Amino acid sequence: MPIDPSLNPFFNPQGVVVIGASNDPTKLGYGLAINLVRSNYQGAVHFVNIKGGKLFGRPIYTNVLEVPNPVDLAAVLIPAPLVADALRQCGQRGIQAVIIGSGGFREVGAEGAKLEAEVLEVARQYRIRLIGPNCIGLLDTHLPIDTTFLPPPGPTPGDVAFISHSGAICAAVIDWARGQGYGLSRLLSLGNQADVSETDMLVPVAADPYTRVLALYLEGVKDGRRFIEQARQVVREKPIIALKVGRFGSGQRAVASHTGALAGQESAYNAAFRRAGVLRAETSEEMFDQARALAWCPPTRGRRVAVLTNAGGPGVTAADALESLGLELAEFSGHTRAALGVILPPAASLHNPVDMLASATPDQFAESLRIALADPGVDNVMIIFPTPPMYTAGSVAKAVIPVIHSAEKPVVVAVMGERLIQEAVEHFRAAHVPEYRFPERAAAALAALVERAELLEYALAEPVRPVETSEVFTQRFERSEEAETSEVLMLLDAYGIPMARMELARSADEALAIARRIGLPVALKVASPEISHKSDVGGVLLNLGDEAAICSGYEEILRRARSAHPQAEIQGVFVQPMIPSGQEVIIGAVQDPQFGAQVMFGSGGTEVEGLKDIAFGLAPLTRLEAEYMLKSTWAGRKLEGFRNIPPADREAVLDVLIRLAQLAADHPALGEIEINPLRVLPKGQGVVAVDVRTGCR
Amino acid sequence: MPIDPSLNPFFNPQGVVVIGASNDPTKLGYGLAINLVRSNYQGAVHFVNIKGGKLFGRPIYTNVLEVPNPVDLAAVLIPAPLVADALRQCGQRGIQAVIIGSGGFREVGAEGAKLEAEVLEVARQYRIRLIGPNCIGLLDTHLPIDTTFLPPPGPTPGDVAFISHSGAICAAVIDWARGQGYGLSRLLSLGNQADVSETDMLVPVAADPYTRVLALYLEGVKDGRRFIEQARQVVREKPIIALKVGRFGSGQRAVASHTGALAGQESAYNAAFRRAGVLRAETSEEMFDQARALAWCPPTRGRRVAVLTNAGGPGVTAADALESLGLELAEFSGHTRAALGVILPPAASLHNPVDMLASATPDQFAESLRIALADPGVDNVMIIFPTPPMYTAGSVAKAVIPVIHSAEKPVVVAVMGERLIQEAVEHFRAAHVPEYRFPERAAAALAALVERAELLEYALAEPVRPVETSEVFTQRFERSEEAETSEVLMLLDAYGIPMARMELARSADEALAIARRIGLPVALKVASPEISHKSDVGGVLLNLGDEAAICSGYEEILRRARSAHPQAEIQGVFVQPMIPSGQEVIIGAVQDPQFGAQVMFGSGGTEVEGLKDIAFGLAPLTRLEAEYMLKSTWAGRKLEGFRNIPPADREAVLDVLIRLAQLAADHPALGEIEINPLRVLPKGQGVVAVDVRTGCR
Repeated sequence: MPIDPSLNPFFNPQGVVVIGASNDPTKLGYGLAINLVRSNYQGAVHFVNIKGGKLFGRPIYTNVLEVPNPVDLAAVLIPAPLVADALRQCGQRGIQAVIIGSGGFREVGAEGAKLEAEVLEVARQYRIRLIGPNCIGLLDTHLPIDTTFLPPPGPTPGDVAFISHSGAICAAVIDWARGQGYGLSRLLSLGNQADVSETDMLVPVAADPYTRVLALYLEGVKDGRRFIEQARQVVREKPIIALKVGRFGSGQRAVASHTGALAGQESAYNAAFRRAGVLRAETSEEMFDQARALAWCPPTRGRRVAVLTNAGGPGVTAADALESLGLELAEFSGHTRAALGVILPPAASLHNPVDMLASATPDQFAESLRIALADPGVDNVMIIFPTPPMYTAGSVAKAVIPVIHSAEKPVVVAVMGERLIQEAVEHFRAAHVPEYRFPERAAAALAALVERAELLEYALAEPVRPVETSEVFTQRFERSEEAETSEVLMLLDAYGIPMARMELARSADEALAIARRIGLPVALKVASPEISHKSDVGGVLLNLGDEAAICSGYEEILRRARSAHPQAEIQGVFVQPMIPSGQEVIIGAVQDPQFGAQVMFGSGGTEVEGLKDIAFGLAPLTRLEAEYMLKSTWAGRKLEGFRNIPPADREAVLDVLIRLAQLAADHPALGEIEINPLRVLPKGQGVVAVDVRTGCR
Repeated sequence: MPIDPSLNPFFNPQGVVVIGASNDPTKLGYGLAINLVRSNYQGAVHFVNIKGGKLFGRPIYTNVLEVPNPVDLAAVLIPAPLVADALRQCGQRGIQAVIIGSGGFREVGAEGAKLEAEVLEVARQYRIRLIGPNCIGLLDTHLPIDTTFLPPPGPTPGDVAFISHSGAICAAVIDWARGQGYGLSRLLSLGNQADVSETDMLVPVAADPYTRVLALYLEGVKDGRRFIEQARQVVREKPIIALKVGRFGSGQRAVASHTGALAGQESAYNAAFRRAGVLRAETSEEMFDQARALAWCPPTRGRRVAVLTNAGGPGVTAADALESLGLELAEFSGHTRAALGVILPPAASLHNPVDMLASATPDQFAESLRIALADPGVDNVMIIFPTPPMYTAGSVAKAVIPVIHSAEKPVVVAVMGERLIQEAVEHFRAAHVPEYRFPERAAAALAALVERAELLEYALAEPVRPVETSEVFTQRFERSEEAETSEVLMLLDAYGIPMARMELARSADEALAIARRIGLPVALKVASPEISHKSDVGGVLLNLGDEAAICSGYEEILRRARSAHPQAEIQGVFVQPMIPSGQEVIIGAVQDPQFGAQVMFGSGGTEVEGLKDIAFGLAPLTRLEAEYMLKSTWAGRKLEGFRNIPPADREAVLDVLIRLAQLAADHPALGEIEINPLRVLPKGQGVVAVDVRTGCR
């Protein structure tokens, strides 16, 4: 993964200047200076403050222009109105990487936003890359370097890199990580992201050989598609786990379709993270719990878990937690059971979860673990122990750690209790074995490993574009202000999406003539660009088998539509042949401002919002994601048949879903498009789009 | 709540004898003796061991018959085969409360089960109440007394009582509670429950004035209905929170209905806990997190939460967590915003979540809290603070604690970090303010308080029995081996459940005659006790409007049913008038071995298992629970109307659901009964059961 060379000085500077260094210990500029000096950074350290003076035996220059070589990174902590000038001097001094810790910019309102714009303009002028403003800074525990102004102590060296949109969270995370016994490799607070964003930093941070997993606290991403592309690159080598906050309260907007009503920022982020192969944590705690397992465990081969414990209750708790997370209790081989039987007392339970009994010795723990790991039906192991009454938890830890280290399968540990188990906990932490206080959290850590393996497949999959699109066609469509029905039909046709024949009748006589030509029975549907949910107004009549019914039906539909929407322009009535019966699904697409087109699949009809049996994916779709959408909905699972519902043409659904996704990706001007219902005929007979609606943006 | 007097000695003994006391420190009998002595128990303490001798300066009697007065509780820790004899001597000595810690009983197999049966028989003979065998014992930190053999230290005195089916969990919980800074009032390990069960102990433990909340670790309950009755009594005064494990892997059984396929132990426990007003925790950690909030906070009046913080990120995280748990961010009054504006700097955010900025002083924290608590639109407050850069977390804690103590609304605290915040954490713990490391967990604690308030309503509600049943009728039905269709129809009629008229035709001619009588069009349905899902075999024809169709329909149905079920007894075809169209739901009931009849409501049709839009309740239903079942399903919400679906007779659905529940509760011999579909007509026009199926047990 090539790293943007302009970002290099942030992570490997030859010399750092602190602009705003202070010898007043109550000032942040003092905190930054002392952190940098104490971090044991090996390059040159310089201080600048207009007041001059000395600090930690070094001169304080009054101007960055006076600072001697080497210097290629500046950390700025001066009042916001002075930052632009300081930046200009950095540019003149040849410094092209600057961290602005100062607040008082966009986050405080319009005045600050003006200052921020000015700062950004200076940065552009001198080709300076900026982190911040309004950030905590960055640190690297291995280089080492610390440009934050946080109160000591900083994090211990470790293998989890943390990139954050919130500075306050950074301080808490450093302290929390220390208490929880794991270290950080790098920590990066991005602040207002005037220039450098989370996406810019993924590859450079992942390139750090000490970093084994990236944890992200995100309040949003700046460029959705670029984030996905960068993250997809990174996760091939190192897992990313993200906490995306700000889920709720996103504004409502006017929508023309079920898809539009159900799609939103959250469905887009979920689809985007899946496409990028990024794990999504539900809580801060979960993010770091799971980050440790991702950093320290070998990749898992599957979802089968062996549970070893010295008591019944915790085993049952673990089994519950594993199954509720979609993992499985491994089925032991006869050989495994026999081997366990040799070393464990007769009253022990040799089935999974293995209850070694309260009398279990450290050796029995270690040997049982070895046996479980050797079973080819076991993908992962969880060891649980309330302190064994006869032995210290520490002695058990010492016995099992060498076995865990030699294993090629993940092993996680639940050490239950708090004070009596501290020695064991310290052993596990030092040995980089993920340990948790409760079986449920250990189970969640294993689930993250399984999810990581699955997400890797998603990240590696490539989108499918079955349709060769002609440039001309695409452009002509985008110029139109509103999607005319005829145009939409042409578009569906061009993308190979089979649509029920639909002809516009402007009078009852025309309707009759069309019906005679295409054959009875027919369906009639109101034709009005302003009425998107036709059946809601009684604008649909099905299975009209004689001519009188067609004539009266035409008038009836017009009457109903006019009474429901007196102002709407009604063009007439569409006449369609009746389509063979079959299962019905909905497929739709809507443009997300951040991630572009997302597609929806699920149970169609008029109750889409009520049943919420739907799944979203990013357009264009990968085959894997289209499969995911079918598997995660009842509408999709039912396509394989259920009781008296015969199997339907599932393959054709996948194909049309992928085609609709490509259509939506190719036509961003088409704000919404929705086929509801898509009639799915029996296996091998394809699908028919019965009704389609669109909306522009 | 009257307490069974036979259980009194367990909690307030005049004298305790340890049978199996040992002066060998590696023996559990030594551990028990030393725990009892060190517990500062104020009654008499006696030791018994056949070897005699002295222990802690006291005599060891060789036989319990020699033990002097007072003595009314025995704690037994001797090999299983000797327990029955020791128990007999206890009986002779007049001791009628015994805790058997010894293992080697039912939990080790058939031999042990025989010993356990013998012990139980002796207990019955001497009217001795037993806790255990195979348990850790019990302790009370306030009396105080400790009859466990766990390694010290025991729990600190507190207000959470813990009752557990697992002994191993007890040891971990004591240690964990100590580390997490909260105390236990009582701890009770029940072991094999040969005599005393979790249900027996609810009222006695709740009667303890020091206990403010009961936490239960359950692997099941022994008598479902009695558990509900006892728990309902307790929760009126003190909350109960339970972790029920062993959710998965319960055996599959043959079922005749959708209800039977979907109902299970889990749906029954959920319904039972709701009826009893018991909170169900998802994990061990959650149980104790929430128990602290339940013990320490005043009851909440609603779901509106004010969030006070000194940084943006944690506020967003909290808002997400609150909303995902169904809580709401409070909308501040203008007065509140103005008051906050007076004390906070201009850049602070005065809207909820309130960002007081990193500069927030302890006084600003305290004053903002006071203002938020005074707003009538605020039901609860969450304070979040990453350590403020300028002040210690401890100083903030000291400032807010008096405000929290004087508040009549719940306040929970998220103190982010680990080591830098220890002082603050200690202050909060000492002051009994629930504190958590992350906003998400603080939010979950508030959600538990809201749930507690709602569950109290459920516990107070009384079941409704709208039907006066005649004893004669009930008995006659129960005698029948299998529910005949005619009998089921009589039963439905007796319970006031309107059923579509349905007449059996044994030939096409009979079908025609019935149709002529009841009027065309009609529906035909196969009549066979062995075919419960009629439409699955093509056994249903609807809307037959002419006589030819009825004749050929009769033959067609018979042909299809025979081809699908060649061995089935087919009695003919039911003829029904066509019922006006309307919404369709499913209602059903099934007998649970533990809790009796549970009822189901939801989206009907043939895809019930796929859509899983269903809810369960315990029969007979309370009105509140019937409402819950409608509100928690799309099928129920839709009854109020949705888009082009007109409102339906929701009131009639509630009524019929309650009637079916009573029917199922009155007829335990009726294993399953299901109405699918129940056609719901427009408002005021009632419901019609279109099809019914039953199964016996």
